[in-house]
Amino acid sequence: MSMSRTRSTFVSPIVESFSWLDGVSFPPDRPLLNVSQAAPIDPPPKGLRQAMARAVLHDASAHLYGPVLGRDDLRAELAAQISDHYGADISSQQIGITSGCNQAFAATIASLCVDGDEVIIPAPWYFNHKMWLDISGVNAVALAVGADMLPDVDQAAALITPRSRAIALVSPNNPCGVEYPAELLRAFYDLAKSNGLALILDETYRDFDSRSGPPHQLLQLADWDQTLIHLYSFSKAYRLTGHRVGAVATSPAQLFEIAKFLDTVTICPNQLGQIGALWGLQNLSDWVAGERDEILDRRAAIQDGFAIIAEQGWKLLGCGAYFAYVEHPFPQPADEIARKLVTDASILMLPGSMFMPKDDPAGARQFRIAFANVDRGGITELFHRLAAFQP
Amino acid sequence: MSMSRTRSTFVSPIVESFSWLDGVSFPPDRPLLNVSQAAPIDPPPKGLRQAMARAVLHDASAHLYGPVLGRDDLRAELAAQISDHYGADISSQQIGITSGCNQAFAATIASLCVDGDEVIIPAPWYFNHKMWLDISGVNAVALAVGADMLPDVDQAAALITPRSRAIALVSPNNPCGVEYPAELLRAFYDLAKSNGLALILDETYRDFDSRSGPPHQLLQLADWDQTLIHLYSFSKAYRLTGHRVGAVATSPAQLFEIAKFLDTVTICPNQLGQIGALWGLQNLSDWVAGERDEILDRRAAIQDGFAIIAEQGWKLLGCGAYFAYVEHPFPQPADEIARKLVTDASILMLPGSMFMPKDDPAGARQFRIAFANVDRGGITELFHRLAAFQP
Repeated sequence: MSMSRTRSTFVSPIVESFSWLDGVSFPPDRPLLNVSQAAPIDPPPKGLRQAMARAVLHDASAHLYGPVLGRDDLRAELAAQISDHYGADISSQQIGITSGCNQAFAATIASLCVDGDEVIIPAPWYFNHKMWLDISGVNAVALAVGADMLPDVDQAAALITPRSRAIALVSPNNPCGVEYPAELLRAFYDLAKSNGLALILDETYRDFDSRSGPPHQLLQLADWDQTLIHLYSFSKAYRLTGHRVGAVATSPAQLFEIAKFLDTVTICPNQLGQIGALWGLQNLSDWVAGERDEILDRRAAIQDGFAIIAEQGWKLLGCGAYFAYVEHPFPQPADEIARKLVTDASILMLPGSMFMPKDDPAGARQFRIAFANVDRGGITELFHRLAAFQP
Repeated sequence: MSMSRTRSTFVSPIVESFSWLDGVSFPPDRPLLNVSQAAPIDPPPKGLRQAMARAVLHDASAHLYGPVLGRDDLRAELAAQISDHYGADISSQQIGITSGCNQAFAATIASLCVDGDEVIIPAPWYFNHKMWLDISGVNAVALAVGADMLPDVDQAAALITPRSRAIALVSPNNPCGVEYPAELLRAFYDLAKSNGLALILDETYRDFDSRSGPPHQLLQLADWDQTLIHLYSFSKAYRLTGHRVGAVATSPAQLFEIAKFLDTVTICPNQLGQIGALWGLQNLSDWVAGERDEILDRRAAIQDGFAIIAEQGWKLLGCGAYFAYVEHPFPQPADEIARKLVTDASILMLPGSMFMPKDDPAGARQFRIAFANVDRGGITELFHRLAAFQP
């Protein structure tokens, strides 16, 4: 069997970890605690569902092809909402709607790179970013984070070569949970700009940032769109994961290139997801604020309750948005422990090795806990199970 | 500006041709006749819309992530329907659901090829296939069709090199409208198999084939899935273009690779489109038969009415599914004529040059007419306008 683009990458950690559950039955008094994936498990609010149902029944455009870069009304509304959120002045011509935020990243890379180019990404990374770079034949240059789980600008500068095309950051971070400080993002922006690179900033989790006000000032800069490519997802804020709607904000010239990819791969984003996202933007800001409060409360529960397992030697490395990133105290590698956690503690969580180069020893010591779907009671239960666990 | 994957290809002909309409106003007695794109312009039947509305309101799974390769019920139903249609025995494990048929093609190429590999495609080609091969760094090796608009197996054999990975065919064909004979498809299958290549067969328009019974016997062959990769779209049969649902049928091993691409680019196909497609498969076979009758009637209207412009020297090269493929009688190149058809005859149709290598002189002589949206009256009007047209 000859080599192919997909053979150059690994199986999605989500898919792989789900296979660990095959044939495992969980005792009634210890059901599975799944903290492997960050995704809503409830449908969107009733009003949004009703708006979608009306469109399905009465709006023919919900069923037909639409513009490659998304519906005009959604582009305009998102431009206005981003402008408001970031204190900026974004036009709808700087917005493209995509079939989920992963596709926004994929199209962005295709618009920037050819085989053999390089993109700098902090490690631990978001695995689908790494997978797409592999599939694209683009070298993912790993930028190790510090003890604070943040990347260092000078270290990034040292990794730049003539083949570098972009630096890709995620804030709030997946998997580490850390919120990148505005000054750090500005420093990365300046580094990218002065080297003629794009700065890709995936802000899928921005609606759950613990800070009030704009998380950074990059969108306020003149000519921001010549350097910055901002990515967003409607999946988390409005519980639209099953509808696949994301977005990208950058220059019209870059969107022209991005549109070629989008057109070729999916022709247009599905219409109904866009109709739902528009209704959400127009009607759900208070509701999203409540969702954020709930996530921040769960984050506090993680921070408060961590003492239970800190005694056993666990360390909390980062915590925010949907994620806690932790270090375990055992001699065994994390991927081995992960399998034992399923059978012995009914816990599914992803080892650090799934977010890192194979040769990085940190991968064997770390775990990501995706806590967004687990309430305070569940978080306490999680810690009690971990406290009692021995690999 | 450095090179990128998207810069290696052209802008979608659909997008480009729509830009020709900018600033053009059409006289009230001669409104635009748009035969540029093959897509339903009406929503799906009410029953399907009601089924989707019920799911939106009451089925939480319609809003949440689903399996990468699609919902189990849809995979099983499509496997049964394909088995029935082709007299074959296909299992749901040989089916993957995708975000439209274009994505099925993109994922298939990613699962087969790396940079510098070759895929043989008949020219005229489906432009999104060519665009994706460009974006993938895969060399699209053009196989010129004969006067009957069909490719020749011996000519294809002569194009095979050590870098060849697949032959990709479309039947019924876009843009040429011809239905590939079963024996021709078998010969291409044998050629692919004996050379260790994949045969990609895009059957997006199979529901509008004029022949009764299976259009080929390939799916009846033992080990078909070691060579054949069958692509399908729900967009046309059930008018689900805006929902982006397609499918791929091949071996589970190939689907394992294809799934990596799908997971990375869109995580899963949107759920509601799948729910609609399933309802369509279960309830709309009679309705689709009626749709097919209507398309076949329009095809007959094209064939019958063509005499009106045959006198002017126009030639009908191929006609079937949604498309007529024609030769014009003028000295000017088709892309120049196409612009003049917009302003002088209120007709939007795509020149052959959009389906062919730049250096193929046939591109300047030919047009594709996508007639699926035009009724008998409209087809007569189209011919009268063309008969009166001089570039």
